[in-house]
Amino acid sequence: MRSDGATRIADASPGLSPDAPIAEFSERELIARIRRPLPAAPAWMIVGIGDDAAVVETERNRLEVLSLDAIVEGVHFDRRFTPPRAIGHRALAVNLSDLAAMGAAPRLALVSLVLPPALPVSHFDGIVAGLTDLAAKERVEIAGGNLARSPGPIVVDITVVGTVKRRRALTRAGAKAGDELYVSGSIGAAAAGLDRFRSTDAGDAGAPAADDPLASAYCFPTPRVRLGVLLGRNEAASACMDLSDGLGDAVHQLAAASGVGATIEADWLPIHANAREWFAARRIDAIDASIAGGDDYELLIAVRPRGRRRFEAAVRSSGTAVTRIGVCTADREVLLRRSGQEAALPRGYQHFR
Amino acid sequence: MRSDGATRIADASPGLSPDAPIAEFSERELIARIRRPLPAAPAWMIVGIGDDAAVVETERNRLEVLSLDAIVEGVHFDRRFTPPRAIGHRALAVNLSDLAAMGAAPRLALVSLVLPPALPVSHFDGIVAGLTDLAAKERVEIAGGNLARSPGPIVVDITVVGTVKRRRALTRAGAKAGDELYVSGSIGAAAAGLDRFRSTDAGDAGAPAADDPLASAYCFPTPRVRLGVLLGRNEAASACMDLSDGLGDAVHQLAAASGVGATIEADWLPIHANAREWFAARRIDAIDASIAGGDDYELLIAVRPRGRRRFEAAVRSSGTAVTRIGVCTADREVLLRRSGQEAALPRGYQHFR
Repeated sequence: MRSDGATRIADASPGLSPDAPIAEFSERELIARIRRPLPAAPAWMIVGIGDDAAVVETERNRLEVLSLDAIVEGVHFDRRFTPPRAIGHRALAVNLSDLAAMGAAPRLALVSLVLPPALPVSHFDGIVAGLTDLAAKERVEIAGGNLARSPGPIVVDITVVGTVKRRRALTRAGAKAGDELYVSGSIGAAAAGLDRFRSTDAGDAGAPAADDPLASAYCFPTPRVRLGVLLGRNEAASACMDLSDGLGDAVHQLAAASGVGATIEADWLPIHANAREWFAARRIDAIDASIAGGDDYELLIAVRPRGRRRFEAAVRSSGTAVTRIGVCTADREVLLRRSGQEAALPRGYQHFR
Repeated sequence: MRSDGATRIADASPGLSPDAPIAEFSERELIARIRRPLPAAPAWMIVGIGDDAAVVETERNRLEVLSLDAIVEGVHFDRRFTPPRAIGHRALAVNLSDLAAMGAAPRLALVSLVLPPALPVSHFDGIVAGLTDLAAKERVEIAGGNLARSPGPIVVDITVVGTVKRRRALTRAGAKAGDELYVSGSIGAAAAGLDRFRSTDAGDAGAPAADDPLASAYCFPTPRVRLGVLLGRNEAASACMDLSDGLGDAVHQLAAASGVGATIEADWLPIHANAREWFAARRIDAIDASIAGGDDYELLIAVRPRGRRRFEAAVRSSGTAVTRIGVCTADREVLLRRSGQEAALPRGYQHFR
C-alpha cells in the first residue's frame, strides 16, 4: 500500500463526519485506516505496507499459486443492495475461492482500491472491514496494494498468493470418464438473493439480517478454503474448479479442460431450500436459475471411483457438505438429465454480452 | 486468465473488422488474442493462463517482491492522447518501476483488464501489444489475470512478482544524514509531454513519432529495471524509490521513511532539454514543473559516501545515466536550494484531491 503523494495537516481527521467524502482525507490517513485493524505482520513478511513493493520469504518445498480477480460496481455488484462490508468481503472471497479450487492454502493478498472521491469515508471503512475480517478469518496477510481515484465505478482488484505441495495442485484438467462429479454446499441462494434485491425496493444497503440466507449468500459468500486445501493435500480430487460463473459454466469448463463429457442429474442438485421457495413464488424454474446463476462460490469436484474413500475422509475433515450431482462421460457431450430427458446443460453468465 | 463464461460459434471471428467492439467477441477469443503473442511458458510455470489460478515454482534462496498498481482512464491517462499500446506499456512499466525501486528482478505478471464493451477490438489488441512487448523485453512472464466489463473507464491493474537476494532488497528507509541523492535519467519530459497533449488538439491518439521525446516519455516510460537490479545486487544504494508521483513527492517520502532531511540543488536537476524548451515557450517554470510533475519512472537513489565507487560501478554496468541532485541531512527538513535561497521542496501530485 503506497502512501502516494498527499499529506494533510490533521492526519487523524478527528472532526470529519462518517459521511465526509474520502476526498477530504489524505491517502496517508486512508492507508492508516486500512492498517489499523491488521494484526502484526508475520516474520516471513520482510517489508509490508508502505514501501514501493512488499518483500516476503517464500515457503520451502511448496509451489506458489497466484490469482487475481476484480469486482466492478455496476457489473458484479450494485451499491444499492450491496453494503460496503459485502463489497470488501466479496472481493477477497472470489479470490480465495480461486485458490481453494486449486487446493492451495492462502497466504497473502495485495489490494487495489479504485474509488470515487465522493465515497463516504464510512463506506470506505466498511469495505476495508469486510476485507480485513475475512482476511483475519482465513489467515491471509494484507501485504500491500494501491489506492487510486475512480472517475466512475468502484473497482476492487485483489491478487492472492497461496501455496500448495508439489503435485498436489488441483486443476480443471484431470477428470476422466467415469469420475463422479460433486458440488460443495448448496446452489441457487446467491442468484435468488440477487433476484430478490432486484425485484424489491432494497432501499439503502444496510447489512443483511444474519438470519436472511438469501441476502447472506449473495453478500457474504463463503469461499471453500478448508475443503480445497484438504482435497489437494489428500489427492482426493481428479479435477476441481469454482462456480463463480454458475454451475453450468463450471461443468462445461471442467469437461472441456479434461477432454471428457458430463451428465448432470437435475434431481440431485442441492438447491438451497430458501432459493427453491423464492423461485417458486416468482414462477421461475429453480433448476434452470440455479444452474445459470453466478455468485455461488462453491467447488465443482471430480472424483475417481477408486478414490472415493479418500474424498469422503477429506470432506468429513472439512466440515463442508458435498452432493453428488453427476458423472463424467467419454463422449464429450455435456448434458442435463431431467425427468428422464437429456438435453444440453445450459451455460452460465456471459461477461461481455 | 480465466475464460469465464462466454463462448461463441465462430471463435476466430474472422469476419469482424478492427473497429468491432469487444462485446462482439467471446472472452475465449479475447484471451486467445492475449495468449497468441506470448512465448512458450518457462519450466517453472506449472500452470499458466487458463485455470482458476497460476501455479509456479519459487526461486530458491530468493526473497519475493510483489507490487500491484492500477492505471485508470480519466485519472492516469486520457484516451484522446494515449494510444492503446501506451496504455498497455504504461500499466506494466509503472509496476516494473516499483520492482526496480526495490532492487528486484521481475519474474511474472498477472493482468486485470476492466474494459468497456464498446472498446474497438483493435484497441484491445493495441493494449495487449504494449503489454506483451514490454513483458518480452524485460523477460516477464504473463502468468494469468482476469477480464471484466467496465460500465465506465478502462482500468488496467497489474500485479508483478520479482525476486531479490536476502538482505539485498532496497527500501525507502535506509538513508542516513550525509548520504548523497541521485536521480536516474532525466525528469520533466513526461510532464511536458502531458502539458503539450493537453494544450494542443491531439486529435485521435496515434502512436507518437519515435523522434518525439516528450510524447515518448509520457506514453512509453522506461522502467529502470537493470539499474535497480544492479543497485540491489551490489549493495550500492542505502535507499531507493521511484518517482511515479514526481521528484518532490519521492524526496519527501524517502526522507520521512529514513528519518532524515534533504537538500536538493535546483541547478543540478537533470531536466530534459526538450522539456526545458517546452516549458520556456509556455512561460512555465521548468524546475517547479519538473519537481511536481508525475509520470517520470526514474529512480531516486541515496548513496553512502563510502559506497560511492560501488555505486558508480553499478551505474556503469546498467547503461543508465544518473545525476547527483542533493544530500540527506540530519535536521528532517526537506529543502530546495535555488539561487542561493532555501525553501521547502514542493510535493507532487495528490491522488484524491
